[in-house]
Amino acid sequence: MTINDIVIIGAGHVANNLASAFKRIGKKIICIYSRDLNKTVKLAKMLDASYTNQLNEIPPKADLYLLAVTDKAIKEVAEELRFVSGIVAHTSGSVNISVFEKTNSDFGVFYPLMHFSSENVVDFSEIPLCIEANNELCQKALNELANAISRQVHIVSSSDRKILHLSAIFASNFTNLNYIIAEEILKKHGLSFNMLRPIIIETANKILKEKPSKLQTGPAIREDNEVIDEHIQLLNDFPQYQKIYELLTEIIIQKKKSNEL
Amino acid sequence: MTINDIVIIGAGHVANNLASAFKRIGKKIICIYSRDLNKTVKLAKMLDASYTNQLNEIPPKADLYLLAVTDKAIKEVAEELRFVSGIVAHTSGSVNISVFEKTNSDFGVFYPLMHFSSENVVDFSEIPLCIEANNELCQKALNELANAISRQVHIVSSSDRKILHLSAIFASNFTNLNYIIAEEILKKHGLSFNMLRPIIIETANKILKEKPSKLQTGPAIREDNEVIDEHIQLLNDFPQYQKIYELLTEIIIQKKKSNEL
Repeated sequence: MTINDIVIIGAGHVANNLASAFKRIGKKIICIYSRDLNKTVKLAKMLDASYTNQLNEIPPKADLYLLAVTDKAIKEVAEELRFVSGIVAHTSGSVNISVFEKTNSDFGVFYPLMHFSSENVVDFSEIPLCIEANNELCQKALNELANAISRQVHIVSSSDRKILHLSAIFASNFTNLNYIIAEEILKKHGLSFNMLRPIIIETANKILKEKPSKLQTGPAIREDNEVIDEHIQLLNDFPQYQKIYELLTEIIIQKKKSNEL
Repeated sequence: MTINDIVIIGAGHVANNLASAFKRIGKKIICIYSRDLNKTVKLAKMLDASYTNQLNEIPPKADLYLLAVTDKAIKEVAEELRFVSGIVAHTSGSVNISVFEKTNSDFGVFYPLMHFSSENVVDFSEIPLCIEANNELCQKALNELANAISRQVHIVSSSDRKILHLSAIFASNFTNLNYIIAEEILKKHGLSFNMLRPIIIETANKILKEKPSKLQTGPAIREDNEVIDEHIQLLNDFPQYQKIYELLTEIIIQKKKSNEL
């Protein structure tokens, strides 16, 4: 079975990006559903698709119903889609595949390990896609679709997918929080965040060639207590960031001592 | 006064990178000093410079003596360099310019806001250089040298430089620790860190165009307590990472509530 006709449930960043990628490889987006008609119309026009804000109006015979909705909405939408005959799949990092067990017969997961924070459509070729399915035929179909848009397709169980998602929180979400904290500290002293952009890009690019555990630098790994104490002083106005500084510094020192770095 | 003849004190990554950048624009590295003769010989050969491991053998009449040594060694080296006549400058983010006050007459700081963790010589053109000097002539000379290798030259006081350094700890050092933590969590479950590389690069690249406070994603900003609680459970084997997760999640939720995100 090859997936050709696709219904997209949702009109946010993930829906937008995946639908556009499918369209580019010649798949047909036959319908887009979202409660937000404004967003839906825009996306439907771009993809030459029909649209609706009523789940019961969705075409019942597509090859794939892709749920790019919030985690909490997945179960509810799946229940409303009892009447459809194609594969039903969600795009979430943390929702177990079993969410579809009671309502659908062919189902799976199509999780892109990426944050889509803008409506700019990105190139999927190097974005890891994590595929899971409840039967072999369904897995084959999702796998084939995934391989058509990305070179990084992985069959990943629900439990491993949760671990990937959790690790991405550290590597991406908490990293962005670090950028926010840095910006806030600079702003308080009238300094520009622009000055940090080169070191941020370099820090990320380095892990393309080397393990991060080989790349740690800074006062903590040197156990430079004079600098560490001064930084903790400088953070007096930011007690929470002081706590983070102390906790992370402690972890780096421990790791250095146990030869992990 | 234009800086032409340069003595480099130190043979580590910063020394290596700065000396190479100076050489490329036609400056003469007349001598390299380091206690580690092996490193020194290698660098001196590359730069067509003489070398020594005795501070008292350093040529007394260069235009610039650049101290690319550890923070703790700066004061001691400066004392040993009482006999030289050129500008003495260090490359540290955290050491006050006043370190030279009692020992030298023309002095300053030449701080590249970048981590040089490998011996690969990098392109300096976009690396921010923070310049400080104890008099106008000296500042002019350092500024001219800096502008010859970088388009991002800033006159920065010692106190502002410390703030930049501190913010870089968050944006770069602690970010690399995030990568390490992510790698460790994945490894424990037999999953590959490679899968996170695309999202790491994307997270960094996004801040080239947008403020990080506009880019926060993840379960914390959505206040998705179900996912947050599950992640905290999944981190049971890593109590320190659990603590980080809770602390950072709390900060994101607070910032969201106070409309900072």
